[in-house]
Amino acid sequence: MRISELSRRSAVPTATIKYYLREGLLPPGRATAATQAEYDESHLRRLRLVRALIGVRGLSVSATREVLGAVAEHAGERHQVLGLVLGARPVDEDAPAPGPAPEPAPEPAPGAAEVDALIGALGWEVSEYAPARAALGETLETLRSLGAALDPATLRGYAELAERTAVLDLDQLDPDADPLEQAERALLRTVLLEPALLALRRLAQENESTRRGG
Amino acid sequence: MRISELSRRSAVPTATIKYYLREGLLPPGRATAATQAEYDESHLRRLRLVRALIGVRGLSVSATREVLGAVAEHAGERHQVLGLVLGARPVDEDAPAPGPAPEPAPEPAPGAAEVDALIGALGWEVSEYAPARAALGETLETLRSLGAALDPATLRGYAELAERTAVLDLDQLDPDADPLEQAERALLRTVLLEPALLALRRLAQENESTRRGG
Repeated sequence: MRISELSRRSAVPTATIKYYLREGLLPPGRATAATQAEYDESHLRRLRLVRALIGVRGLSVSATREVLGAVAEHAGERHQVLGLVLGARPVDEDAPAPGPAPEPAPEPAPGAAEVDALIGALGWEVSEYAPARAALGETLETLRSLGAALDPATLRGYAELAERTAVLDLDQLDPDADPLEQAERALLRTVLLEPALLALRRLAQENESTRRGG
Repeated sequence: MRISELSRRSAVPTATIKYYLREGLLPPGRATAATQAEYDESHLRRLRLVRALIGVRGLSVSATREVLGAVAEHAGERHQVLGLVLGARPVDEDAPAPGPAPEPAPEPAPGAAEVDALIGALGWEVSEYAPARAALGETLETLRSLGAALDPATLRGYAELAERTAVLDLDQLDPDADPLEQAERALLRTVLLEPALLALRRLAQENESTRRGG
């Protein structure tokens, strides 16, 4: 297809597609004349993923280029691709540590011990670098500092509900789809569903409060 | 207690407490001298709720004053108080409609029909004005416009997990506590737990993806 059709099918303006081509986020099309090129379905899938990484996950162009490079290195390893696109793994996880001296051991992150204990108790396998570990630990610390700490049984209850949510999330991926397409769907559904899941909880709270006749 | 002790126990600076007193967010203490007043536990509870409404829910001082006024009118109706503090109900819900002519019927909100159908199917009792209705509808529309619509069975699955989350949420409230204290706890746990619940989902997704051997 021509760039105009790629633009129409992706709803991305032609000027933006040209910018992504110049920045190396999209591979060049097959040249058919001095100023014309042909694009195919792989360009469309890649373009959709680029839009999701920039527009939905909020990455910069250079961070998007890095993620795409890492995705290309791990193509075929579905789990790695999902982790990279969702941000669970740093793109340089496999790279040798740069510089001569190791950094001094950092202070343990707030709430890290509680998060480690939870993940251990549930037997979850998650990357040591997952940013969600820090996000969880910080919230647990904030609640504690306000005198509203969660008890471990309640935290575990929330985690078990999250497990069931993740099963629903993963069930929606088509295992036969192209890995880039799958990654784009996973990113859209993970990030864009967040406000919907929070809204469902607010509505369910109101209903439960009514039900208890408060 | 003196204002200095109120400041120490609430971790709110004295100058801020004086500002809240001037703005009518806190009732005056019992005057013990021309420039001194005594405060009690009810001031401390109220001050904590004010901090949560401003600092956690992000309300302005005047919006906080309105919510507190509505809470005072409905004191003793636990469900109403929770709804007001969490933002499920507009503060003027009981007020007569202002102005002479009714507004023309607005356009139906995006996704509203799907949200109404879901709430009806689950038998949830939730306020017509709940802001979470609109938040949910908008997300469903966004996903649809991106070609990633949720099917009704999956949406219902998420809603049923939200029901179980709300049971955990409400179980943590002490039904014998003072209503203002209960409202403050509910607000802290509802709003501050949101990033933790999203983080748990991310971690659970990674684990589930590993488990499926992706």
